[in-house]
Amino acid sequence: MFSPIRSTKVYEQVIEQVKNMIIDGTLKKGDKLPSERELVEHLEVSRTSIREALRALQIIGLVECRQGEGNFIKQSFENNLFEPLSIMFMLQKSDPNEIMELRKIIEIETAAIAAKRVTSGELDSMIPLINILKNSKSEEERVKADKDFHYTIARASKNFLIVSILNAVSSLIDSFIKDARRKILVDKENVDVLAKQHKDIYLSLKDGDSKKASEAMRKHLDFANEYMMKD
Amino acid sequence: MFSPIRSTKVYEQVIEQVKNMIIDGTLKKGDKLPSERELVEHLEVSRTSIREALRALQIIGLVECRQGEGNFIKQSFENNLFEPLSIMFMLQKSDPNEIMELRKIIEIETAAIAAKRVTSGELDSMIPLINILKNSKSEEERVKADKDFHYTIARASKNFLIVSILNAVSSLIDSFIKDARRKILVDKENVDVLAKQHKDIYLSLKDGDSKKASEAMRKHLDFANEYMMKD
Repeated sequence: MFSPIRSTKVYEQVIEQVKNMIIDGTLKKGDKLPSERELVEHLEVSRTSIREALRALQIIGLVECRQGEGNFIKQSFENNLFEPLSIMFMLQKSDPNEIMELRKIIEIETAAIAAKRVTSGELDSMIPLINILKNSKSEEERVKADKDFHYTIARASKNFLIVSILNAVSSLIDSFIKDARRKILVDKENVDVLAKQHKDIYLSLKDGDSKKASEAMRKHLDFANEYMMKD
Repeated sequence: MFSPIRSTKVYEQVIEQVKNMIIDGTLKKGDKLPSERELVEHLEVSRTSIREALRALQIIGLVECRQGEGNFIKQSFENNLFEPLSIMFMLQKSDPNEIMELRKIIEIETAAIAAKRVTSGELDSMIPLINILKNSKSEEERVKADKDFHYTIARASKNFLIVSILNAVSSLIDSFIKDARRKILVDKENVDVLAKQHKDIYLSLKDGDSKKASEAMRKHLDFANEYMMKD
């Protein structure tokens, strides 16, 4: 009697309701969702459908379940358990050049915006990263600092959408940085070249110079691209 | 005995396994997933956890359930039931200017890329859209053509990530276009101005001229931005 289609529609409706409550402002960041039992009563659907919908919202990273307290709309969306964009990219067997193209599109202009909006706190947080890039003997540590450096610039743009998009492709950027650095660092002296490129980006941000910031970012990404094209 | 945390970890593990099978290439586009029963046996978890994980993958738009056939990795990811980025943006109560900023970042450079890669089929599909923008009396129809026009350019870039990102913020772009056009069309003669701007973008794509395409796109978005800034 219960076909899968019907069941699909039920959980879709639950998600749709939560979505609409967010759009019309009924649900805000940090708000507690009604209990499972209340949702069952209000929406007149089975507890299973409610639980499926809630799980999906948790997996998407929109809702968090606090033990003994219930379900809440997340305060921060920085860490998404699942990155649909990254996974779909891998499934498409897409070309790594697309990641470079995306990085150039987003990061060059983002650097220009960040130069106007970066805070002194953000600038300060970049200094230890530059030091690691220059002085650390551990490539693993340098890869992490490299990624942190670029994500700090994204946050400095104060554009939530840009930050969210880069977070949504975080695994792709991560493996791209690792691959690019491995190819670049076949020439050992390139550690210093990369460290200097990052420092130049930092200095142009510190000067609040959008044009210099975007040029420094373009130079850095074009350099990486050149090595990615080899092999 | 079964705490919610433990249960959370179980479905996370199921998702993680599917994710890893995609990353290592075991699962490809269009592939059938093992049946619920097989997953229960392989992963040694409850049927409920398996169903929760599968539902979440369906909601994310990665897996589709075909009645009587089972679960499949989707062939196409164009239509995502849920747009996490759009929802999170609404929750953040973010500034609509961020949408304009994102559009400028992505679409100006995407137009430049599209000018080099657009096919004659894609160009042909833009002609009826330009006609609607110029001649239709229905603003609803024109809004749809406006959005289709911009998404055709994204697809013409042949960069899967750019298309996916614009799809992920589709509701935001949609309401942005509606709002911007409403403000612009307070001056009725602006229908022709907007139609001409779209035609100019089309002509520069047709010429394969990246510089002209990005300039035409910038002019168009700056014009919209000017009206969005009013009031």
